[in-house]
Amino acid sequence: MSMFENIGIAGLGLLGGSIALSVKELGLSKRISGFTRSPKTLERAISLGAVDDGLLNFEEFIKDVDFVVLSAPISANIELARIIGRQKPSLLFTDVGSTKKEIVKMVEDFFPSGHRFVGSHPMAGSEKKGIDQANPFLFKGKTVIITPVSNCSPSTIETIEDFWRKIGARTVRMDADTHDDLCAYTSHLPHLVAFLLVSVFSEKMDKPNASACIGAGFRDTTRIAASDQEIWSEIFLSNSENILNAIEKFKEHLNKIEDMIEKKDAQSLKNMIEKIRKIRSTI
Amino acid sequence: MSMFENIGIAGLGLLGGSIALSVKELGLSKRISGFTRSPKTLERAISLGAVDDGLLNFEEFIKDVDFVVLSAPISANIELARIIGRQKPSLLFTDVGSTKKEIVKMVEDFFPSGHRFVGSHPMAGSEKKGIDQANPFLFKGKTVIITPVSNCSPSTIETIEDFWRKIGARTVRMDADTHDDLCAYTSHLPHLVAFLLVSVFSEKMDKPNASACIGAGFRDTTRIAASDQEIWSEIFLSNSENILNAIEKFKEHLNKIEDMIEKKDAQSLKNMIEKIRKIRSTI
Repeated sequence: MSMFENIGIAGLGLLGGSIALSVKELGLSKRISGFTRSPKTLERAISLGAVDDGLLNFEEFIKDVDFVVLSAPISANIELARIIGRQKPSLLFTDVGSTKKEIVKMVEDFFPSGHRFVGSHPMAGSEKKGIDQANPFLFKGKTVIITPVSNCSPSTIETIEDFWRKIGARTVRMDADTHDDLCAYTSHLPHLVAFLLVSVFSEKMDKPNASACIGAGFRDTTRIAASDQEIWSEIFLSNSENILNAIEKFKEHLNKIEDMIEKKDAQSLKNMIEKIRKIRSTI
Repeated sequence: MSMFENIGIAGLGLLGGSIALSVKELGLSKRISGFTRSPKTLERAISLGAVDDGLLNFEEFIKDVDFVVLSAPISANIELARIIGRQKPSLLFTDVGSTKKEIVKMVEDFFPSGHRFVGSHPMAGSEKKGIDQANPFLFKGKTVIITPVSNCSPSTIETIEDFWRKIGARTVRMDADTHDDLCAYTSHLPHLVAFLLVSVFSEKMDKPNASACIGAGFRDTTRIAASDQEIWSEIFLSNSENILNAIEKFKEHLNKIEDMIEKKDAQSLKNMIEKIRKIRSTI
């Protein structure tokens, strides 16, 4: 049964495209409209059957839709949310950005007479990007963090949670501050560190046969270092305070292990690694 | 056709067990003998069919074998190599340790009248350990770095390369210094950093729903943080000089990106990530 008359997907990359395909697969909306600033992407999304139609102008786009998922990069989502606030503040909408404090605060400030927004963060990203990577099962079994906003009606939260569950995800509610703090450690710092591992290795890359020394460990720790620069520079800046805190913590732990190695302190090294191994094995 | 009369596998963990199973599968040795200090492991290796028989005493063990693969942790391998030097210096042998300078130097110093040793490092490790994780196809398509030792006859190198190729690996020759320097960047630093990511996150773990924020990025970057403490404390200390250099380089790059985040320098962040993404995409 359709949940919506006309869902609007704003931003047709990996996430937006996958949401569109999921909605199509499950018949959750009678019509699926896409918004993007790229005519080529819109054409591709239509030809892949992800959206039924689309527009390159957001003001026009929101006129006919009854639910919008903002799936553009963080700063673009915020800009689009502002347009919703000015033009159609009663519109039900969510976003799928990797940071939540910025957009939640913006909606709280910018929708003085109320809104129908909650933030969403599907833990279903990838280093791959673009509509051609989209698939209708991307959210199956994944977690979507739902960040309520002050003055948000319970029905808004429930509708959006219901939407995510229908496309196969489980939902977990969390306030935006906690989300951004935790994700600094579970996602943003790991990305930053993966980028650095490649960056540091690149200084050695020209040695003969250097790549012969690359095994599964390097491949897995740095898979996400192939992630997009537009998306990740925005995430790093949007959540800069928490990320800078995480970097400080990381440096403290790094100095500790460096000290153990310098002092050839095998026992402390073993104890530290054993403790970590046990924690990792439970994750 | 058998390459050997009686191959000896010293250390029956993931690597030793997998070598034994490969040799058995391919019939590369008429007999396969195992050495371990654990009666339980030996029993298990025999019951899994990895080895035909085995001994708990290394001096006895090397009497009857014509090729030994040292597959114990680094310091144990060095101790076993010393016993070979004292008792049967003409024995053909290799090791599969993750660092090569230490054992290569030890053999150069300790076998005054010559030896038949080259070092091997199969890029086929795993965070999993133990004979029960062993499989005969572990080396298929993997690279094995071969580190020649001074005064090593070409026939020794060729026999051991031939052995690895027969069990499915490709071989690459590299001197031990270069190997240990490169592996500090491709394996040891990534392990260290993966350990730290878990260690830093563990401070936040008790927050409600913290694990809901864990996605594929965290899982992949920290998979190897479930690695064994005995093995990894030894690797960190065996290759401490190169690892400490790699940590310094890592800190330099970390300070650079931290500075960009502090200054909200979006353009430099984008340029840095784009450069890294392009490098990673070629690996």
